[in-house]
Amino acid sequence: MEINIDRLMANIEAYATYGKDKNGGVNRPSFSAADYEVRNLFTQELKALGMSVSVDSIANIWGTLPGSGEKDVPLVIGSHLDTVPNGGKYDGALGVLAAKEVVQTLIDHHITLAHPLQIVSFTAEEANEFNFSTMGSRAISGKLVSQELLAASDRTGRTLATAIEKAGGDLSLMDEEEKGAMAAYFELHIEQGSKLENEKLSVGIVDSIVGIYRDLVTIEGQQNHSGTTVMKSRKDALAAAGEMVAEVQKLTLALNSDTVATVGKFDVFPNAANIIPGRVEFTLEVRSANKKERESLVQQIHEAFQAIKNRHGVKMAVANSYNTQECDFDRQLIGILEEAAAESGIPYTILPSMAGHDAMNLAQMTPSVMIFVKSINGISHSPKELSIPEDIEKSANLLLNGLLKADQIL
Amino acid sequence: MEINIDRLMANIEAYATYGKDKNGGVNRPSFSAADYEVRNLFTQELKALGMSVSVDSIANIWGTLPGSGEKDVPLVIGSHLDTVPNGGKYDGALGVLAAKEVVQTLIDHHITLAHPLQIVSFTAEEANEFNFSTMGSRAISGKLVSQELLAASDRTGRTLATAIEKAGGDLSLMDEEEKGAMAAYFELHIEQGSKLENEKLSVGIVDSIVGIYRDLVTIEGQQNHSGTTVMKSRKDALAAAGEMVAEVQKLTLALNSDTVATVGKFDVFPNAANIIPGRVEFTLEVRSANKKERESLVQQIHEAFQAIKNRHGVKMAVANSYNTQECDFDRQLIGILEEAAAESGIPYTILPSMAGHDAMNLAQMTPSVMIFVKSINGISHSPKELSIPEDIEKSANLLLNGLLKADQIL
Repeated sequence: MEINIDRLMANIEAYATYGKDKNGGVNRPSFSAADYEVRNLFTQELKALGMSVSVDSIANIWGTLPGSGEKDVPLVIGSHLDTVPNGGKYDGALGVLAAKEVVQTLIDHHITLAHPLQIVSFTAEEANEFNFSTMGSRAISGKLVSQELLAASDRTGRTLATAIEKAGGDLSLMDEEEKGAMAAYFELHIEQGSKLENEKLSVGIVDSIVGIYRDLVTIEGQQNHSGTTVMKSRKDALAAAGEMVAEVQKLTLALNSDTVATVGKFDVFPNAANIIPGRVEFTLEVRSANKKERESLVQQIHEAFQAIKNRHGVKMAVANSYNTQECDFDRQLIGILEEAAAESGIPYTILPSMAGHDAMNLAQMTPSVMIFVKSINGISHSPKELSIPEDIEKSANLLLNGLLKADQIL
Repeated sequence: MEINIDRLMANIEAYATYGKDKNGGVNRPSFSAADYEVRNLFTQELKALGMSVSVDSIANIWGTLPGSGEKDVPLVIGSHLDTVPNGGKYDGALGVLAAKEVVQTLIDHHITLAHPLQIVSFTAEEANEFNFSTMGSRAISGKLVSQELLAASDRTGRTLATAIEKAGGDLSLMDEEEKGAMAAYFELHIEQGSKLENEKLSVGIVDSIVGIYRDLVTIEGQQNHSGTTVMKSRKDALAAAGEMVAEVQKLTLALNSDTVATVGKFDVFPNAANIIPGRVEFTLEVRSANKKERESLVQQIHEAFQAIKNRHGVKMAVANSYNTQECDFDRQLIGILEEAAAESGIPYTILPSMAGHDAMNLAQMTPSVMIFVKSINGISHSPKELSIPEDIEKSANLLLNGLLKADQIL
């Protein structure tokens, strides 16, 4: 059995008109007008498929297709429909629409699963103005409580409670809401990297999500006139911070692994050609699927920073701002997807996800796994984000066949 | 003969009330209300001393005390009365007021020089909104023509011509104006650095002004997601630029000389914690009194940048934005000041100026020299700018005695 790739691609294009950007991308942040509109469209389309639709307290949208009655607990497939500002057509929407295509295919073939089948579109997966990314999946996995969400508002003063309510949710019900049991969670998503492309593969089976560690580092030197301060008397915050950036690169490359470290935000003060920088603030981010390696790299970097700080006679403050742990996906589900891929003759690799996804929160509640589809040029969060029909077809068929196999085994 | 230090200090405080800042500094940019007011005060005070006062086409203020008639061409002493925004009491004003104190002292002692003696306060020495620093001295030394000045306006739309006219100047007369000959130019100024303080000296005799070389360097890498792009696939503009900053520091320290190099302005794009920087723009500034060393250092830095660029696989553009040549002051005048210092028992050192001054333009027209007075903590362009009476007294006496000696010798 195979999904209908033409229908799926047409669906992707149709959804991309909601929040369509003049650059060819999609601008559909959570709780934007386009987000509300696409939620309505999605709800109506699920109903048209004969699914019963419900919206939970955090405004996640759930569509349910009854099973044969043999098993009570649903298999769940989904992703998210929001995008980053000026994002692309595939990040999130592909997983939701592939799930819908799977349901449509099952219906076309008059197949009823042993389990009920649920589609979910999670609320606010991307970073947003309310400062809660993967909001919908974090809420249902119990990692958020209503109190912190009720205090949130965006820069226009709109409260998150109002924004959620407009999407059909109700934060006041959140803490009492019963968490429905699930048999398994599958999420199809674009890779957002180049590993599949480099290995000339259409699909990957994701066995883990990296842990992400972030510091805000502040270097305090001494601001001074660039002409009248001799080199030896300087406490140049940028000279110290520049060495630190170089050291992050060097130490991380030396690992020769998939662990990555990045200095992405870097601000110099007062930032004038003829003034020795008195202060630099920068972020350090380390991502790894290997907890031990991540922790050891962070420690090495901190030690190197300390040495550079001492050599330059500057002050340093390191504040940890973020520290999410690694997440391993379910071995049985990985095995099921491997078998399904092998049976369908779809070449694949097993790889970690270097970015966070709703599935990392679902993995706390239920056996979970992800499928990655090749991203052309590794680009995401951009109008240039692209996955091609050939690759999408293989990945959606793997989702379909993995699901069918799981329905038998679980 | 000695100047009256109490009178000079009282004068510095009195002038500092024009544009007085609530932080204890002076906010008197060129062509501000406070600048116009202090020009009037200065003009009136010169006249009260019995000097004839004229304002030239660029609005430099000249006061002339007749000589004995023995020599025609004047000795000139001066500096500038404008400040940077939120500057201090001493930068500029000290040189003008010390010149006035020298004239007052000569008058008190009924001394008439062989040469006419002129005091000058130059227009707009500091960087200003019209983008012509050392404007007054550049104009009289023929480095500016009226055409470019007539095209200048500030961000409020006020033309430079209007601003100059309000100060008593007239740009339309500039190109035809006769440049008066001078026998010598002396300028007393705060050091703005820490060399005198480090050597526990009150005064320095300045033998040169550094050449200043500035590039705008742009590094273009590849913007990408910080999680999904493995280290080896990255073209991180900041990782490259960070190494470049470290290299500038290393190469310049290795010279073990007074040559300085600074990366002061440094901007990262798009500047977000989870995005590999795609572009960095930074300034490189090299200052040296030694042309050969400056040029060789710039070349070494460029070669190092090229190597780093190649190693990181990024693109680089280097645009030279500024390149002023070194200026050597007059050997005879330096010798005269050395003798005067020795005769008065004033310990001194000979040092280069690491910042530009009006004297570098005067040096193109006439034998010129500068005297530096110690800056406490090397601070300038700040309300914290400070020189103390003991040091000011020695430097103003050196100006007086150097002038008397020059009057005899020249």
